[in-house]
Amino acid sequence: MTFVEKVCVLGAGSTKYGKLADSIADITTQASVAAIESAGISPKEIKASYISNVFGVADKQVHIGPVLMSRLGIPDKPSLTIESACGSGSVSFREAYANVAAGFYDCLLVTGVEKVTHTGTEWTTTYFAYCSDFFYEGQAGASFPGLFASMARAYMTEFNTTEEDFARVAVKNHDNGVLNPKAHMQKKITIDDVLNSAVVASPLKLFDCCPFSDGASSVILCSEKFAKEHGGDYVECIGSGRGGSPAALQGRDHMTTIPSTKLAAADAYKMAGITAKDVDFAEVHDCFTIAEVVDTEDLGFFEKGKGVEAVREGRTALNSDISINPSGGLKSKGHPIGATGVGQVVEVYDQLTGNAGERTVKDAKIGLTHNFGATGASCAVHVFQSV
Amino acid sequence: MTFVEKVCVLGAGSTKYGKLADSIADITTQASVAAIESAGISPKEIKASYISNVFGVADKQVHIGPVLMSRLGIPDKPSLTIESACGSGSVSFREAYANVAAGFYDCLLVTGVEKVTHTGTEWTTTYFAYCSDFFYEGQAGASFPGLFASMARAYMTEFNTTEEDFARVAVKNHDNGVLNPKAHMQKKITIDDVLNSAVVASPLKLFDCCPFSDGASSVILCSEKFAKEHGGDYVECIGSGRGGSPAALQGRDHMTTIPSTKLAAADAYKMAGITAKDVDFAEVHDCFTIAEVVDTEDLGFFEKGKGVEAVREGRTALNSDISINPSGGLKSKGHPIGATGVGQVVEVYDQLTGNAGERTVKDAKIGLTHNFGATGASCAVHVFQSV
Repeated sequence: MTFVEKVCVLGAGSTKYGKLADSIADITTQASVAAIESAGISPKEIKASYISNVFGVADKQVHIGPVLMSRLGIPDKPSLTIESACGSGSVSFREAYANVAAGFYDCLLVTGVEKVTHTGTEWTTTYFAYCSDFFYEGQAGASFPGLFASMARAYMTEFNTTEEDFARVAVKNHDNGVLNPKAHMQKKITIDDVLNSAVVASPLKLFDCCPFSDGASSVILCSEKFAKEHGGDYVECIGSGRGGSPAALQGRDHMTTIPSTKLAAADAYKMAGITAKDVDFAEVHDCFTIAEVVDTEDLGFFEKGKGVEAVREGRTALNSDISINPSGGLKSKGHPIGATGVGQVVEVYDQLTGNAGERTVKDAKIGLTHNFGATGASCAVHVFQSV
Repeated sequence: MTFVEKVCVLGAGSTKYGKLADSIADITTQASVAAIESAGISPKEIKASYISNVFGVADKQVHIGPVLMSRLGIPDKPSLTIESACGSGSVSFREAYANVAAGFYDCLLVTGVEKVTHTGTEWTTTYFAYCSDFFYEGQAGASFPGLFASMARAYMTEFNTTEEDFARVAVKNHDNGVLNPKAHMQKKITIDDVLNSAVVASPLKLFDCCPFSDGASSVILCSEKFAKEHGGDYVECIGSGRGGSPAALQGRDHMTTIPSTKLAAADAYKMAGITAKDVDFAEVHDCFTIAEVVDTEDLGFFEKGKGVEAVREGRTALNSDISINPSGGLKSKGHPIGATGVGQVVEVYDQLTGNAGERTVKDAKIGLTHNFGATGASCAVHVFQSV
């Protein structure tokens, strides 16, 4: 890859995540305005918008880009929507990153959004299942809880792990989420709460699963030159990587590793000139507790099969060896699917600019975001550095 | 903008447009394989895929990128889906263009696809209306035929034009479509056929409207170096521009011009170092007959208010002053919305490499594609040159 410009995040904003009453257009605008204000710029400085959204149909507003631009008073500026299932936010960020790095645009707005809870559990589950390899998975009844349950069962068999081990991931992330005023689930839970919650797809129980959330998150992405000239706090994006996996789980060599994560991480680390050891904290894709365990291994934080041990020993808790999901993660912060990857960048921005309050990772210099689509069929990893 | 590489189209392929029985995954794959074969490359040469699709939900397959990559035998390669309503194809092409121009990737697959006809007219119309500014338009009953009818009525009033004038656009495009074996509507029509067809939204009648179509189109986009090393015929993309308009018609200063087209064209002409006079043929967004008239004015081919006169005098017919929609356009070739913008590039490739058969624009050197979303809220224009 060729780079003309260093890429920075100059501002960030989010709505609360949860069941929201406002429309998809309203929450998209709210997060965008918050990011623009955080950056201390005028909307007219924005050259184009990258929006990540999967199910605009759920709230009857597809082609939301021009609606947002009109509301921001810049209807002449181009926009587009990117979908890569639950990984849409990180892919949208990546496209914006590439355009700034190439010198095409010096200032871009990246906004992720999803509004689904009003459709109810049945419709939300159905929509989400359309993101699997539907011919082989969704239409055979394998929605995401079932697919991740298969991964969890395989992991338990391969590495002699218990349901209690997975439960610890949920407890940790809820502990962090309590410290995040924008989190969907601001409630401490115990291992017993998880183990005693309703079985969704054995061995996964309700509290092993992230919630369906509405929400929007937004960041301003710009060149280093623009950031220096326009003011406030910024962080630098020093690595960006992407990768793919076979769409259906049945097509993979192993059920307990996600190839796209490894590919994306290798690219991002190489570009950033770092190794996994250099990462102070990471926002990883914990749609289900098993996912976080697999992620932290595939990202190179722990050896294969040792991710559970790390959780057991508290090494992934806030301000331990490596703080995993200080925001609360998808599990507690929530998972408005199109917004999630952008929301991870908001957390990194807040952490590295001293705006993370009680959940601050002390002395953090390098943060990583990891966000995938479906069961990891697509993935993007980004590495950020404080300046 | 900064450019590291010249960007070329090395291969192109399409399914037939129309009511198709195969699944969205099948037609996506068919078009992609056709483009890869046309380019004379191996799938493994592809570094990433850009897919344009709006309503994956209609055929229950969202996140189609990894499904396509798996079917092509390259599941490790990243992919993403771009939505910009009916302009998705050109926006997807633009993103791929930017990534090749920047030197990020030397070879990309761009595939547009839509599969909707099986949902029926009511659902298709409903889905499409979600692409308007739904709060102000769609939910008030203003679906796209009504919105374009408002534009047509305003045009008739402002420029003293008749319904017969619009009908001539349909007749011309059907004349061209008869020469295109992949066109949805391969049928000659007369002015009387148009005038006597059912009123959809006065003054627009059924034959003023493009059909709902299924279909997929695909091109291989690469650096000039890659094109020269890998063989076959290629054309160069010498200009790329984007623009936006207020999302709702009510927000615009005029009803008879589309600001995003003018902005996108100005950018594309400037980058290509040409003027409208240099264009030999253009594939323009004729979702309704009024749209083609407005497009040809906004693109600078004719003065404001003179587009109708040009059609009346046959100046936009095949091998006249400027061949507009030699493929048959959306009106006759069909409009599988996510595929349309990519399909326009397929036509340009076929024209400039001598593969357009009976509809060949003689001695053509420069072709233009113009594709917008909704009522022109978003737009992209691309300029191509034979080599």
